[in-house]
Amino acid sequence: MARQTCSAPALAALLTAGDRTGNATAAAEYICSKLEAAALTSVDITTAVDTTYLLFSAYMVFAMQLGFAMLCAGSVRAKNTMNIMLTNVLDAAAGGLFYYLFGFAFAFGCPSNGFIGRYFFALKSIPSPGFDYSYFLFQWAFAIAAAGITSGSIAERTQFVAYLIYSSFLTGFVYPVVSHWFWSPDGWGAANRDPSASLLFGSGVIDFAGSGVVHMVGGIAGFWGALIEGPRIGRFDHNGRPFALRGHSATLVVLGSFMLWFGWYGFNPGSFITIVKSYGPIGSPIHGQWSAVGRAAVTTTLAGCSAALTTLFGKRLQTGHWNVFDVCNGLLGGFAAITAGCAVVDPWAAIICGFVAAWVLIGCNKLAERFHYDDPLEAAQLHGGCGAWGVLFAALFAKEEFVNEAYPGRPGRPHGLLMGGGGRLLAAHVIQILVICGWVSATMGTLFYGLRKMDLLRISAEDELAGLDVTRHGGSAYVYDESSGGNGGDDGGFIMKGSKSTNRV
Amino acid sequence: MARQTCSAPALAALLTAGDRTGNATAAAEYICSKLEAAALTSVDITTAVDTTYLLFSAYMVFAMQLGFAMLCAGSVRAKNTMNIMLTNVLDAAAGGLFYYLFGFAFAFGCPSNGFIGRYFFALKSIPSPGFDYSYFLFQWAFAIAAAGITSGSIAERTQFVAYLIYSSFLTGFVYPVVSHWFWSPDGWGAANRDPSASLLFGSGVIDFAGSGVVHMVGGIAGFWGALIEGPRIGRFDHNGRPFALRGHSATLVVLGSFMLWFGWYGFNPGSFITIVKSYGPIGSPIHGQWSAVGRAAVTTTLAGCSAALTTLFGKRLQTGHWNVFDVCNGLLGGFAAITAGCAVVDPWAAIICGFVAAWVLIGCNKLAERFHYDDPLEAAQLHGGCGAWGVLFAALFAKEEFVNEAYPGRPGRPHGLLMGGGGRLLAAHVIQILVICGWVSATMGTLFYGLRKMDLLRISAEDELAGLDVTRHGGSAYVYDESSGGNGGDDGGFIMKGSKSTNRV
Amino acid sequence: MARQTCSAPALAALLTAGDRTGNATAAAEYICSKLEAAALTSVDITTAVDTTYLLFSAYMVFAMQLGFAMLCAGSVRAKNTMNIMLTNVLDAAAGGLFYYLFGFAFAFGCPSNGFIGRYFFALKSIPSPGFDYSYFLFQWAFAIAAAGITSGSIAERTQFVAYLIYSSFLTGFVYPVVSHWFWSPDGWGAANRDPSASLLFGSGVIDFAGSGVVHMVGGIAGFWGALIEGPRIGRFDHNGRPFALRGHSATLVVLGSFMLWFGWYGFNPGSFITIVKSYGPIGSPIHGQWSAVGRAAVTTTLAGCSAALTTLFGKRLQTGHWNVFDVCNGLLGGFAAITAGCAVVDPWAAIICGFVAAWVLIGCNKLAERFHYDDPLEAAQLHGGCGAWGVLFAALFAKEEFVNEAYPGRPGRPHGLLMGGGGRLLAAHVIQILVICGWVSATMGTLFYGLRKMDLLRISAEDELAGLDVTRHGGSAYVYDESSGGNGGDDGGFIMKGSKSTNRV
Repeated sequence: MARQTCSAPALAALLTAGDRTGNATAAAEYICSKLEAAALTSVDITTAVDTTYLLFSAYMVFAMQLGFAMLCAGSVRAKNTMNIMLTNVLDAAAGGLFYYLFGFAFAFGCPSNGFIGRYFFALKSIPSPGFDYSYFLFQWAFAIAAAGITSGSIAERTQFVAYLIYSSFLTGFVYPVVSHWFWSPDGWGAANRDPSASLLFGSGVIDFAGSGVVHMVGGIAGFWGALIEGPRIGRFDHNGRPFALRGHSATLVVLGSFMLWFGWYGFNPGSFITIVKSYGPIGSPIHGQWSAVGRAAVTTTLAGCSAALTTLFGKRLQTGHWNVFDVCNGLLGGFAAITAGCAVVDPWAAIICGFVAAWVLIGCNKLAERFHYDDPLEAAQLHGGCGAWGVLFAALFAKEEFVNEAYPGRPGRPHGLLMGGGGRLLAAHVIQILVICGWVSATMGTLFYGLRKMDLLRISAEDELAGLDVTRHGGSAYVYDESSGGNGGDDGGFIMKGSKSTNRV
Repeated sequence: MARQTCSAPALAALLTAGDRTGNATAAAEYICSKLEAAALTSVDITTAVDTTYLLFSAYMVFAMQLGFAMLCAGSVRAKNTMNIMLTNVLDAAAGGLFYYLFGFAFAFGCPSNGFIGRYFFALKSIPSPGFDYSYFLFQWAFAIAAAGITSGSIAERTQFVAYLIYSSFLTGFVYPVVSHWFWSPDGWGAANRDPSASLLFGSGVIDFAGSGVVHMVGGIAGFWGALIEGPRIGRFDHNGRPFALRGHSATLVVLGSFMLWFGWYGFNPGSFITIVKSYGPIGSPIHGQWSAVGRAAVTTTLAGCSAALTTLFGKRLQTGHWNVFDVCNGLLGGFAAITAGCAVVDPWAAIICGFVAAWVLIGCNKLAERFHYDDPLEAAQLHGGCGAWGVLFAALFAKEEFVNEAYPGRPGRPHGLLMGGGGRLLAAHVIQILVICGWVSATMGTLFYGLRKMDLLRISAEDELAGLDVTRHGGSAYVYDESSGGNGGDDGGFIMKGSKSTNRV
Repeated sequence: MARQTCSAPALAALLTAGDRTGNATAAAEYICSKLEAAALTSVDITTAVDTTYLLFSAYMVFAMQLGFAMLCAGSVRAKNTMNIMLTNVLDAAAGGLFYYLFGFAFAFGCPSNGFIGRYFFALKSIPSPGFDYSYFLFQWAFAIAAAGITSGSIAERTQFVAYLIYSSFLTGFVYPVVSHWFWSPDGWGAANRDPSASLLFGSGVIDFAGSGVVHMVGGIAGFWGALIEGPRIGRFDHNGRPFALRGHSATLVVLGSFMLWFGWYGFNPGSFITIVKSYGPIGSPIHGQWSAVGRAAVTTTLAGCSAALTTLFGKRLQTGHWNVFDVCNGLLGGFAAITAGCAVVDPWAAIICGFVAAWVLIGCNKLAERFHYDDPLEAAQLHGGCGAWGVLFAALFAKEEFVNEAYPGRPGRPHGLLMGGGGRLLAAHVIQILVICGWVSATMGTLFYGLRKMDLLRISAEDELAGLDVTRHGGSAYVYDESSGGNGGDDGGFIMKGSKSTNRV
C-alpha cells in the first residue's frame, strides 16, 4: 500500500502566501486531504484484516467437515465406512454448488422480506458492501455442517439416492431459510435486524453461531430421517432390548472429535465476522471486538471441557468404565450447546452450559433407547438436544454488557433472564425452538416420509447385513490382509470390486 | 506500537508566533512529521498483516504434506505403507535443507537472468525488501508439494536410494528453475516481470498458483519415473488385462483428500502473497486484494466441487457404483486445474474448469490403462493431465479486470481468449506447457533412465511381492493382532523386526 | 471502524478567522484531534492484528493435542489405544478447567512475587492490559502440551485414576509455577523481567517457547513416572535383553508427527505473542517483529529437517533399515530442541541444533536401554533430553541483534557464548536446567512415588497382558471383523462391552 507523503515546504508556502484567505483554504484542503488519505488507508487495512480473520475462520469451519467424516467413519461399522465418508465429501461438494446457486441467495439475499432472501443467486452482484466472497465461503462452510449432522443419524441403512436428495434440499433450501430468519438483517427473528425494523419481543433471537440455526436444524432433520427409517437390524432384539452396534474405530472417533474441536474455533469466534471494531473509546487495548472474540474462544473451550468431564464421571457411574466414545460425544454436546451464547456469556457460565449439556445428552440417549430410536452418531440427541439447551442457555445467561457490544444500537434491549435481563429474550428463544422444530419437521419430515413411500429411503435387509460398501461402493474400505487380494487375481470377498479406473476392462 | 501524539499547544504556538514565515515553516514541518509518522505506522501494520496472511497460508500449504502422506498411504497396499509415508516425511525434511541451500536461490535469487536465480543461497541477504523469511517458507512448502506428487507415481516398487536422489534433485534444482521462469520478476515467462522487460507474447504466463509450475512438474516427473520402472507386478495379467491393485484404506484416502482441500486454501488464495492492497479508490470496501483473495478461495472451492460431482456421476455410469476413491481423485483434479486461473476467473467459469477436469482425468486414466502405464496414485494423470488443462483453462477464461488487478501496470495486456482477450495469452500458455514438458523430461526423464541403467531404480520381484515395509523398513506398518507379536518373544512374520531403538542388542 | 473525516472548510475558517490567537488554538486543536484519532485508530487495528495472530497461533498449538493423541495411539499396542487417547482428550479437558481455575493465575497472575502468581484465578480481572482472553487460550494450549508429553512415558501400564491425579497436578500447579519463573514479567529467571528488577546473572533465561519450561517439565515428569512404574511386561527378558514392543500403527505415528509439525508453527513463532512491532525506523519493511516471526518459523523448520535426516542415516547405519518411527521421533527431537532458541538464532545454527538433537536422542535411547528404562513414546528422552540440549543450544548460539530485538530495553545484555556474548547466558541456562530438574523431581517424583505406595499407580499384570482397553475402557478400539461382533448378538472377545449409551439395559 503506497504511503501518503506530506510536503512540508509545500504546506509552509500555503500557510504563508500573500492572499491569506484563499491561502488558508488551500492549506486546510492540503491538511485535510492528507488526513483523509490516512483515514482511508486505515479503512483499507481494516477491511484486509477483517477479511483475513474471516477467511481463516472459514477454512477452519471447513476443516470440521474432515472432522465429521472421521467421526462418522469411526462410529459406524467397518462395512459402511466408505458410504458414510462419501456422504461427507458430497455434503461439501454438492453443498458448494447448491449454496452457490440458491442457498446463499435464500439466506442472505438483500434487500428481501423477513422470510426468504431473493438476491445474489450464483453470486450475482457479489461483492457488494458487507457481502464479499469471504462471507459466502464462511456461510457455505456452515451450511455443509448442517447437512453433515443429518447424515450421521441415518447412517448404515440409507439408499444413496435418498442421501443425494435430502442433502441438496437441506443445504439449498431448508437451512438457508432458517439462517435468513435469524441471521440476515432482514430476518424476522434476527437480533441484528435493520434499525428501522422492530425486533421479535423487542429482543430478537441471540443465536450467535447457531445452536439453533445449525445444530437443531441438522439434528431435527436427522431425527425424522432416523425415525422414519427405523432402527438398524440388530440394534434391538425381539424383546426390544438394546444392543450396542459398535463403531469400528475409536481412533477415528478421537481424530474426528479433535478436528471438530479445532474447527469450532472458526465456527464460534469466527461468527463475529470482523475483529477490528472498538467497543469503547478508541485506542483502548481491551474494549474491542478482539477481546470479545478471544472470550468466545474461551467460553467455547470451557463448555466443551466441562461437558467432557461431566460425561466421563457420569458414564463411569452408569457403566463402570471410562469410555472414550462417550467423552468425545459429551465434548461435542458441550460445544453444540455453547454455540448460541458463546459471544454473550461469561466464562463461568460456559462451565454450567457444558455441565448441563452432558446430562441433556445422557438423558436424550436414555429416551432414545426407551423409545427404540436408533441414531448411529447420536446426532439428533447431541445436536438437536444439546442445541436446544444451548438456545435456552443463551436466553438465561446472556450478559447485558456483552449483548450490547455484540448487538449494538438498541440500548436497553433484553438480555439473560438469570442476569436480570427479563424474560423477553427467553420468549424469543422459545419461539425459535418451536419454529425450527416446526419448519424442519414440515419440510424434512415430509421429504423423508415421501422418500419412504417411494421406496427410495432404506436399503434391503440383505444389503444392510452385507454392508453398504460392498453393495453400493464397490468393495470394502480396508484391505489389510494382502493374501485376500491386492495382486489382481482375486477380486472376491473383502476386496473392492472394480474399484478405481483400473478395473478389468 | 507506540502511537504518535500531537501537542495542540505546541502547534498553536507555532501557528501564532511573531515571525510568521519561519513560524509557518515550523508549523508545516510539525504537521507533516505527524502525518508522516501516521503513514509510516500504516506501512508497518500493513507489513505485519501481509506477513500474518502469508505465514498462515504457508502453514496450510505445509499441511498438504500431511494430506499427501495420508492419501498416498491409503492408496497403496498395506505392505508398502511405511515406505510411501517415509518418502512424504523426507520430501519435507530433505526438501527443507535443499531448498534452503540451493532451491530458493535458483528460484527467486534476484537480480538474476531469465533462466536461473543466483542469490540468496542459504538465505544469505535475507531478509531484503520483498524477500522475507515468510516468503521463503511459503515457497518451500510449494517445492515439497511437487516432490510429493512424484513419489505417488513410483510408489510400491522403487528403491529408497533412488527416491532420495530424485527428490533432492527435483526440489533443489528442477522445480526451482521452472518457478524462476514463471514466477520470479526476472523469469522469461513471468506475467509479473519487471516493468523494464518485455513479456512473452506481450502477455507472459498467468500460472497464478502453479497448475503448470507445481502440478505439471510433479506429474511429468512422476510420469517418466513410472514409465521407466514399468507397472507393478500383477497390475496387468499375461494377456494385458488390467487388475485393480487396491489401496488398503479408504479412510486414509478421504482423510488425505480433505487435508489437501484444506491446504489448498493456503495454496491458491495464499499465492497473492499480500492482502492489504487497494485496487480502486482507497477506502472502498470491495475493490481490493482482500476481495480477490476471497474470490480465489471461492473459485477453488467450486472447481473442486464441480469436478467431484462430475466424477461421481461419470464413474457411476461407467462402473455401476458410487466410488469414494474416484470422487476424491476427481476433487483433487479439479483443484489442480483451477490452480493456474483461480485468481483471474469468475466463479461460474470455475465450475466449467472442474467439469472438464473430471473428464480429463477419466480420459487420462483410460489412456493409461490402454498403454499399460501404472501409476498407483494416478498422479501423472491427475497433476499432469488436469494441470495442463488448468493452464489452458486460464488462457481461455481469464477476465480482463481480474488480470489487470492481479498483474497491474501493463494496461491493455492480453487476457482470456473466450473473454475477448485475444490469443496471445493462450500462445504463452501453450509455450509453457511445451517448455515444462521438455525441461522435466530432459532432466527427470534422464535421471530416472540413468538410475535404471545403474540398477538403482526398481526393487527385485521378490521384494516387491513381499512388500517394501518388511524388506526395507523393518516390518509392517500395522500390528492389530496382539498374539502375532508385541510381547517381545516373537519377532517374526507381521511384526517390525528390530524397530525403534529397542532392538535386541 | 468508523473513519475520521476532516472538514476543510471548517479548518479554513479556523485558520482565517479574525481573532488570530484563539483561532490558532482552535485550528491546532482541530488538527491535533484528527491526528490523534488517526493514531488511536492505528492502535485499535494493531491490537486486532496482534490478537488475530495470537488466536490462530493458539488454535494451531491446540491442534498439537490432536497430534499427540495420534502419535501416542500409533506408538502403543492396539490393546491400549483407547486408554492413551482418552488421556490426551482429558489433558485438554481437565487442563482447561484447572488452568482456568488456578494454573493461569499461578503462572501469570500479576503483580506477584518471583515464585508464583496470585491473581487472575478463574479469569477474574481478565481482560486487563496485556492479559486478554487470547493470551489465556494460548497459554492453556501450552499447559496441556506438557501434560501430553508425560502421558506418553507411562503409557500401557498406568491406572486411570493415577493419570487423572498427576495430570491435574501438573497442569494446575507444577507447570504453571515453572512458566511463572521464566516467562512472567515477575519471574525470578525471566529474560523479559520488569525493567525495575535485576536479571539472573544480568541476563535471565532465554527459553523463548519452552524447551525447558514445557518440554523438560513434561519429559522429567514422565521420566519419574516411567522409572517408578518400571518397564512394561515383556520389554526386557529374564536376561535383561530388550525386546521391541511395537506400536500398532505407523500411519497414526506419521499423522501425529505431521500434525505436531504443523502445530509447532503456532508454538514457536506464536510465542512472540504480537507481530505488529517495529524494530528499526518505522516504515521499514524488514526491521520488525513480522520478520523475526518468519525467521522463527524457518529455524524451527530447519532444525526439524536436519534432525530427521540425521536420524534417518544414523539409524540406518545402526539397524540396517530406513525406519519411519525413528525419523518421526528424530524430527520431533529437533523441534523440541529449537524451541528455546528459535527466535534468537540464525537459520544455519538451527541446522546444527537439529543435528545434535538427533544424536542426543539416539544417545538417550541407548542409555535408557542399558538401564532398563522403558518409555513407550521415548518421551523422557525426546522432550527431556533434546529439550535440555535446546536450552544449552540457545545459550551457545543466541545472536546479539536478535536477543536485543526479542528482549529489548537492556542494552549490552549477554548473548550466546559462541557468538561472542560471554558465559552469563549459559550460566543462567545451566541454572534453569538444574532448577527444573529439581522442582519437577521434587513435586512429580514425590507424587508418583506416593501413588505407588498407595497402590494407585500401576495396573495388575493380568490387566496389563489383557490390555487397558478391555479392562478399563469397555472393549477394543477396533472392530474390523464384522463376524466377531457388531450385530448385537455377540458381545465377547474383541468387541467393546456395553459401550456407548446403548448397552443392554
